[in-house]
Amino acid sequence: MKKEIPYKIYLSESELPYTWCNLRAFMKNKPAPLLDPNTMQPITVDALSKVFCEELAKQELDDTTQYIEIPTEVRDFYKMYRPAPLIRAYCLEKKLGTPAKIYYKFEGNNTSGSHKLNSAIAQAYYAKEQGLKGVTTETGAGQWGTALSMACSYFGLDCNVFMVKCSYEQKPFRREVMRTYGANVTPSPSMTTEVGRKINEQFPNTNGSLGCAISEAVEAASTREGYRYALGSVLNQVLLHQSVIGMETKTALDKYGVKADVIIGCAGGGSNLGGLIAPFMAEKLQGKADYQFIAVEPSSCPTLTRGKYAYDYCDTGKICPLSKMYTLGSGFIPAASHAGGLRYHGMTSTLSELYDQGLMEARSVKQTDVFEAAEYFARIEGILPAPESSHAIRVAMDEAIKCKETGEEKVIVFGLTGTGYFDMMSYEKFHDGKMTDYIPTDEEIEKGLAGLPKL
Amino acid sequence: MKKEIPYKIYLSESELPYTWCNLRAFMKNKPAPLLDPNTMQPITVDALSKVFCEELAKQELDDTTQYIEIPTEVRDFYKMYRPAPLIRAYCLEKKLGTPAKIYYKFEGNNTSGSHKLNSAIAQAYYAKEQGLKGVTTETGAGQWGTALSMACSYFGLDCNVFMVKCSYEQKPFRREVMRTYGANVTPSPSMTTEVGRKINEQFPNTNGSLGCAISEAVEAASTREGYRYALGSVLNQVLLHQSVIGMETKTALDKYGVKADVIIGCAGGGSNLGGLIAPFMAEKLQGKADYQFIAVEPSSCPTLTRGKYAYDYCDTGKICPLSKMYTLGSGFIPAASHAGGLRYHGMTSTLSELYDQGLMEARSVKQTDVFEAAEYFARIEGILPAPESSHAIRVAMDEAIKCKETGEEKVIVFGLTGTGYFDMMSYEKFHDGKMTDYIPTDEEIEKGLAGLPKL
Repeated sequence: MKKEIPYKIYLSESELPYTWCNLRAFMKNKPAPLLDPNTMQPITVDALSKVFCEELAKQELDDTTQYIEIPTEVRDFYKMYRPAPLIRAYCLEKKLGTPAKIYYKFEGNNTSGSHKLNSAIAQAYYAKEQGLKGVTTETGAGQWGTALSMACSYFGLDCNVFMVKCSYEQKPFRREVMRTYGANVTPSPSMTTEVGRKINEQFPNTNGSLGCAISEAVEAASTREGYRYALGSVLNQVLLHQSVIGMETKTALDKYGVKADVIIGCAGGGSNLGGLIAPFMAEKLQGKADYQFIAVEPSSCPTLTRGKYAYDYCDTGKICPLSKMYTLGSGFIPAASHAGGLRYHGMTSTLSELYDQGLMEARSVKQTDVFEAAEYFARIEGILPAPESSHAIRVAMDEAIKCKETGEEKVIVFGLTGTGYFDMMSYEKFHDGKMTDYIPTDEEIEKGLAGLPKL
Repeated sequence: MKKEIPYKIYLSESELPYTWCNLRAFMKNKPAPLLDPNTMQPITVDALSKVFCEELAKQELDDTTQYIEIPTEVRDFYKMYRPAPLIRAYCLEKKLGTPAKIYYKFEGNNTSGSHKLNSAIAQAYYAKEQGLKGVTTETGAGQWGTALSMACSYFGLDCNVFMVKCSYEQKPFRREVMRTYGANVTPSPSMTTEVGRKINEQFPNTNGSLGCAISEAVEAASTREGYRYALGSVLNQVLLHQSVIGMETKTALDKYGVKADVIIGCAGGGSNLGGLIAPFMAEKLQGKADYQFIAVEPSSCPTLTRGKYAYDYCDTGKICPLSKMYTLGSGFIPAASHAGGLRYHGMTSTLSELYDQGLMEARSVKQTDVFEAAEYFARIEGILPAPESSHAIRVAMDEAIKCKETGEEKVIVFGLTGTGYFDMMSYEKFHDGKMTDYIPTDEEIEKGLAGLPKL
């Protein structure tokens, strides 16, 4: 007899994963190696260790260990806000009148408001283990900065966040959450770094950019004794830590004998989607099961759907390693969008390679369509989603509506990465009919790609 | 063998209560009856039914039925965000170095951000059952308005919220959450009601007040066909619905063989505390077990600790029924406080009577002490608490510190009613050292009490 499926599947503490799933280790054709920007040769652990903690540098380059143990201290922290619920969208199914079964993994039930905390706590732990004083990072919308502040506060580490100046001024509440956790939040460009002073001199009225904030954070980490840099997406280590999302999702589905057909996630740098699909894709790569994977990106920043698979810099300042990835060019400036977390020119190398091999699909969606889905979902399922997460909602709903037409009883699983409490200004624009869509022209895309490094 | 207690105790769906616990029904000395403001006689179901739904009017006056069944539709909605976790504060205990065992019931994991949804969905359900078109209400800080918007959206009811004008302008994000759920949010005083137009004429630049917003909402409900009024606290019906908090808490503790010693909650109108203690107080009244109960209120609005037990109006406009309660007088204007949800001149009649009988204690705390506790808690336990909830945190921590001195291994349970995501302006003031404390003088208290009605 099949067990009745509750609205929310909560695993017990003992069912929480003991290991992360290292997706790359299951791939026959591995993602291409990161290149050292100084030598253009594959980067070494030693070189990476100057920027990141040593253990994280090792994880960054490890593409053979399939499962990596979650340290007890990290797992203890996970117990404070995990396992995250896997929710059966009974109300949404009913409202849509679809025969599809819809599930979503909800990562928003923690103070950082998103999945970012999964990697922040791991990165803070390894920094503490190495005896560091603190870490530096940048933040745009503020979710990553908040997550890292919380993690550093827990381990008693100093946390220095360079926050893009326009966000610092326009999102004072996010800034205050970070301050509540004891973080030192500096508007970027600042006068505390060389690169910041230079930019302030060149552009006295600049509002800052993520590229500049990254450069400041990296400089601060490398010039201060006992500090390293931490990053919230794109990196292999972040995908690894985020695999806790997929591990829990799989355990929950298995427990109720449910097999997913389609797995959907929004993709900016790609860490949440990479984490969600990790154990499922591992099965697919081993020929144990088949799944359809869909990455959803904003049409304003269509990395997978309109970008090029090539080596590129991960940052605008070109001081970080180069990665082979789908990219719009590190000089591509995405239009202002209400899903700040998806405004990244590239895509993590693992997902890029899987997409290139045809193992994963990609779709781009317009932001007004995304907010329409967000509001619909909020009213039906109760949860107010982040604009980023709502990209996945949009496509999950589209797939469910297709099932209504075909009569297929597909099992659709999507990642609901976070809540939209700090995005109400965007919702307001949507309510007032003032939200517009932006799709870059072919010329704009070509211009970005023309800036790719010649190797 | 005792079961090991996890960080978070989640009940399964089947353990979710099937009934609410009607605390008054367990009391030998009942709270005094509500009085009709027109006759000064005990109010009837008929008279109440002109303002509230009929079923809610019945619940309001029912002080004999011990357990009232939760309608299936309401229980189904509860399944979407409940059971709420009972969290063992392992990290806080460790940090404080206390032998006390601390638990908190966390009601913030839903989009309304607080426990208010527990009663909102019940009130919306009965309105729908009665075939009404919609409901009206008022909101100050916005939590109740948000909760009712969500509930009405679920049942397809029209929701009209009169939001105190200064909040409407200063808290645009709360307003947008309500709009996301389809509510019609009107700044109060408005030009849509008679009382609103009068007040706008008399005081052209007024920022509004909760008293005025209540009057507008009641007028709107009674003059529009198919509408009734809904209220988020103080009423008996609200305490009844909030008993789901206590029922779950008790089930979770019983499951692990834990007996609470002290139960603590913040108290504004008293609904969350009344709900939390309901099944425990019922045991105490039946002589089955003993517990210490502590109501925590702001020193700026010290209803229980400095008020008088007397009949008073529930609203500033004196159009609602009179209740015998601890009160500072319906004309008492509490100083601006960062815990807007605790700025109420009275206390629900049930808690007032229990306090008067010596079955419950009360403490008042200063807001700077409260924010100090809030920040400490956020850093240790991860959750960013609402200022209101932090009153309970303050006293729970004080009690745990006392245990450290005496060596007592008390089990302390407190209610964490909500999150502080929309209160970052208050946190900012605290961080910047700009928060002050306000304690009313004896003269101010006397002045408020002098306005009590002479019966």
